[in-house]
Amino acid sequence: MNALHSSARSKPTDAVIASLSAELSGRYGDRVVTSVAVREQHGHSLTWVKNQPPDLVVYPRTTEEVSDIVKLCAAHEVPVIPFGAGTSLEGHINAPFGGVSVDVSLMKRIVAVHDEDLDCVVEPGVTRKELNESLRDKGLFFPIDPGADASIGGMVATRASGTNAVRYGTMKDVVLSLTVVLPDGEVMKTASRAKKSSAGYDLTHLFIGSEGTLGIITEITLKLHGIPEAISAGICPFPSVKAACDAVIMTIQSGIPVARIELLDEVQVRAVNLHSKLTLPESPLLLLEFHGSEAGVKEQAERFGEIAAEFDGGPFEWATKPEDRSRLWQARHDAYWAARGLRPGAQSVATDVCVPISRLAECVDETKRDILESGLIAPIVGHVGDGNFHVQPLVDTDDPAEVAVCEAFVDRLVRRALAMEGTCTGEHGVGQKKMKYLEIEHGTAALALMRILKQAVDPRNIMNPGKIVAL
Amino acid sequence: MNALHSSARSKPTDAVIASLSAELSGRYGDRVVTSVAVREQHGHSLTWVKNQPPDLVVYPRTTEEVSDIVKLCAAHEVPVIPFGAGTSLEGHINAPFGGVSVDVSLMKRIVAVHDEDLDCVVEPGVTRKELNESLRDKGLFFPIDPGADASIGGMVATRASGTNAVRYGTMKDVVLSLTVVLPDGEVMKTASRAKKSSAGYDLTHLFIGSEGTLGIITEITLKLHGIPEAISAGICPFPSVKAACDAVIMTIQSGIPVARIELLDEVQVRAVNLHSKLTLPESPLLLLEFHGSEAGVKEQAERFGEIAAEFDGGPFEWATKPEDRSRLWQARHDAYWAARGLRPGAQSVATDVCVPISRLAECVDETKRDILESGLIAPIVGHVGDGNFHVQPLVDTDDPAEVAVCEAFVDRLVRRALAMEGTCTGEHGVGQKKMKYLEIEHGTAALALMRILKQAVDPRNIMNPGKIVAL
Repeated sequence: MNALHSSARSKPTDAVIASLSAELSGRYGDRVVTSVAVREQHGHSLTWVKNQPPDLVVYPRTTEEVSDIVKLCAAHEVPVIPFGAGTSLEGHINAPFGGVSVDVSLMKRIVAVHDEDLDCVVEPGVTRKELNESLRDKGLFFPIDPGADASIGGMVATRASGTNAVRYGTMKDVVLSLTVVLPDGEVMKTASRAKKSSAGYDLTHLFIGSEGTLGIITEITLKLHGIPEAISAGICPFPSVKAACDAVIMTIQSGIPVARIELLDEVQVRAVNLHSKLTLPESPLLLLEFHGSEAGVKEQAERFGEIAAEFDGGPFEWATKPEDRSRLWQARHDAYWAARGLRPGAQSVATDVCVPISRLAECVDETKRDILESGLIAPIVGHVGDGNFHVQPLVDTDDPAEVAVCEAFVDRLVRRALAMEGTCTGEHGVGQKKMKYLEIEHGTAALALMRILKQAVDPRNIMNPGKIVAL
Repeated sequence: MNALHSSARSKPTDAVIASLSAELSGRYGDRVVTSVAVREQHGHSLTWVKNQPPDLVVYPRTTEEVSDIVKLCAAHEVPVIPFGAGTSLEGHINAPFGGVSVDVSLMKRIVAVHDEDLDCVVEPGVTRKELNESLRDKGLFFPIDPGADASIGGMVATRASGTNAVRYGTMKDVVLSLTVVLPDGEVMKTASRAKKSSAGYDLTHLFIGSEGTLGIITEITLKLHGIPEAISAGICPFPSVKAACDAVIMTIQSGIPVARIELLDEVQVRAVNLHSKLTLPESPLLLLEFHGSEAGVKEQAERFGEIAAEFDGGPFEWATKPEDRSRLWQARHDAYWAARGLRPGAQSVATDVCVPISRLAECVDETKRDILESGLIAPIVGHVGDGNFHVQPLVDTDDPAEVAVCEAFVDRLVRRALAMEGTCTGEHGVGQKKMKYLEIEHGTAALALMRILKQAVDPRNIMNPGKIVAL
């Protein structure tokens, strides 16, 4: 298959932007913003890619408005960058070619909750915490939890996952259907609300993980779960990363339906202890959570305890009280900020890879050795049930030598994961920083096919250009 | 988005086929077959679409051979129809435009089983039973079970599911990666072996359910599960379909991780009793299976029994002995053949739809009324945990009036499901018979996008033409 390249973009001219801005302002009034502060807020996220502000920001309220905005941008061939909560990590929503940031934060309706079907329909600006707040009274919850209070639209777009993925899957497993505004402004639905279907190409998964490069997601139908009757959590220290990983492998092989099983290395534990005022043992540590019936949760935890002991782990300490459990998981969720506390003022370079779980211990150990040898401060946390881990070097980005050391380290990290049949990103997405690894990971023919898809769906290359495969 | 149509195909000329046949025979000898019997066997399946034989059948042994064959066909612009076990139901592998049936039944290697990662790599001709036989000694199993002993490649291509889907998902949930021969003969891999990834467009899901219209699947990496410590099964009669469905909804809402929950209507129960020499109660009946620990399975079954009683179901009878359990599920798996026994000599018109579970009872009840009013014999079985059910009218296809009655009935069935936010097929696929419903189900823009994808990936329209979206 020929490697068709979308032609590299250039920025729209000032005249084009002025004309588009006038048209948009005429329709959307003060929901079109051009102030530097707002543009810079939209030209960045938690990424360490430098700020690349869009030319203007617009805040639609409905699918129809998004369609209208995209049609105007298409007519002017101006880039469109969908914006959710701005929590992405690899430069997904920066605007390297300027254009219009379409901020969906006003699209916050929970359109429907279908209790009997265990699904709901939401707009993309709803965040995962907002959704769970609104579901609690119905005894339902949405399980995907990437830590950050990301928008549901953004989570779909990056194929996010997080701490619950080992049991509940990732965004690719929980989306039933999407409403999408295509690059020409047409509105379409990817699927019905049926729980499964074999009716044609899987358009839903085409857009999950497309990072805004194929269209803008304006409505999402999500699978939900009943809140478990019982939840228990616990911690278990291990003498080594290898011992912890081996215990995880056996736990999963045994069919124990663990809901969360998270690894923190001793550097991350220290950071968490400092940040969250805890006294967790500063060794490789597993944080666990079990969901089920009272009896089921007890049985799961006991069986895990036995497995941990086989690998010299322990003591396995339970936290059945909701407040202890919340404190523990809040500490885990604050891991990103805790890590930053290890070197105040430094930029956080949060990145992730994922390998088959059989290779995880080896991959983490080699990475820890590399961190030491590179002289970096870089805590590690892992969604160890999935083989996915995060490394967060803390870098003085004003020091080019240090940046070079970090870049080289991340490059080795990714190549190490790829050599172990892994992926350059388990859940953060490609954005700008991982583009260069797609060909190594997928090979020439697969990358060419991705380009063919992009070009077929977005022939003008206006949707979030400069990300994934389109230059 | 413009509705780009691939141009309608015509059959290749005899001269083209003769030339291609000579080239293929030169390379593959007696693995190229042109006998009428073999061609007719490959021009059909369990579908009621009339036989449409390919011009020749070829049996490759490797990905490289598939690539070579596809390159030759592409050079001659001759249709390529991938063929697995021939168990599809909607005319997927018929050859309406002739061409080459690529039968992968010699590609039966189990390339690797990774115990620690709970995955395996297989060739497409391996059937699900063969795979499970070979996994048993390792304590692992592959859960997707459509009843028929389909090939894994075919199951990927139709996005199959079956009786275990309520717990283990469908083919879309268990495929980690695919090796695919593209329509120009290039070979690519859709993903790494990592359990999750956010590295670019989801090529894996593009091919799952593509029914051979975008490429030929030559290797599949599948997620596996440990064989549960304990399995129990049981049956539970209900006074009505509605009562049975309500019990299912509450079971799932309660988070009981039921592994199988199947509905048989009283017509199907009678057929099964006759065929399998059983004495099941001839009323709407749920067949259930629970997987877990000894204690967990017991708890699940007890809780289900309580729920069933709330909806006037029961008695719930257990079958814990493996031989009773096997007998029960063998009877369920034989439902297709049992149904045929209700009218020997008639053609079976097996079709399926899927609706949100909240609408299932209503959809099944209306369908049963319609069956009565139409004067058809048509048993119903349902993967009721998914809202998916099968209707199997038994029709004398030599009687045009009866065929017309059946066609009209299936049309009403599909439109009924679509009106209830459902899909025209939950697991059988589009093939030829459901093509006309794609626009009603998905809308003009989504169907146009499917056509754009097809045209981008297979611009010559050589891959299984006349299926899904390409004429």
